[in-house]
Amino acid sequence: MIQRIHHIAIVVADLDAAIATYQGQLGLRVSKRLHMPEQEVEMAFLPAGESLIELIQPITDDSGVARYLRKRGEGLHHICLAVDDIDASLEALAANAVRLINDQPIQAAEGRGLFIHPQAAHGVLIELLEPDEET
Amino acid sequence: MIQRIHHIAIVVADLDAAIATYQGQLGLRVSKRLHMPEQEVEMAFLPAGESLIELIQPITDDSGVARYLRKRGEGLHHICLAVDDIDASLEALAANAVRLINDQPIQAAEGRGLFIHPQAAHGVLIELLEPDEET
Repeated sequence: MIQRIHHIAIVVADLDAAIATYQGQLGLRVSKRLHMPEQEVEMAFLPAGESLIELIQPITDDSGVARYLRKRGEGLHHICLAVDDIDASLEALAANAVRLINDQPIQAAEGRGLFIHPQAAHGVLIELLEPDEET
Repeated sequence: MIQRIHHIAIVVADLDAAIATYQGQLGLRVSKRLHMPEQEVEMAFLPAGESLIELIQPITDDSGVARYLRKRGEGLHHICLAVDDIDASLEALAANAVRLINDQPIQAAEGRGLFIHPQAAHGVLIELLEPDEET
């Protein structure tokens, strides 16, 4: 069911500053940058092997990501695991009565995904994602 | 410099319960389990593509991991990025005056590694690791 780590998401207060850090200190490179007003975030993707590091900056004050930043500060937000069939994953999770954030897969920047509630995964927000072809 | 995400480390209160969750809900499998009294932890590795998910349970009350668990609860602890030459990485980081947790690479379960301080990486504890041959 799980193919690989698709991305690790990091919430940051200042995307430009975070990009400068991750590029300058670690030699990573930004492959894509997205302004996503409907999700109230701006994001940058930095490839590391078959995975991405995703830097996420809230661009409004009242989104979930904005509240997370205010409450916990900058840092690791969630991990995303690539699956080959998100509908089959949803079915398996539902059969096990696993608590989800969203009842149906949602369209994310990189494909169709769903989020497992941290209380069902030992404190970790886990996204399962069926990536679009190009991601 | 960065080859891939080597592992994502998750601190848990009960390793057996966490293994049951990650195996049962996500279909991941434990490839290795280590009892490491000198590091005051017990760990399980679950491969996901070219990376590992590492579940870590403190086995004493006063280690850094135990304090982290008490303070923040279960959840994401650090990410580890594989590099091909840890000494070259250390040199580059030192040249940029990046704040590190350890001044010299230390022998970890999976190879020689060093930790970048979260204050130098937007709230994320980042391990750089030159993996041993077999990891």
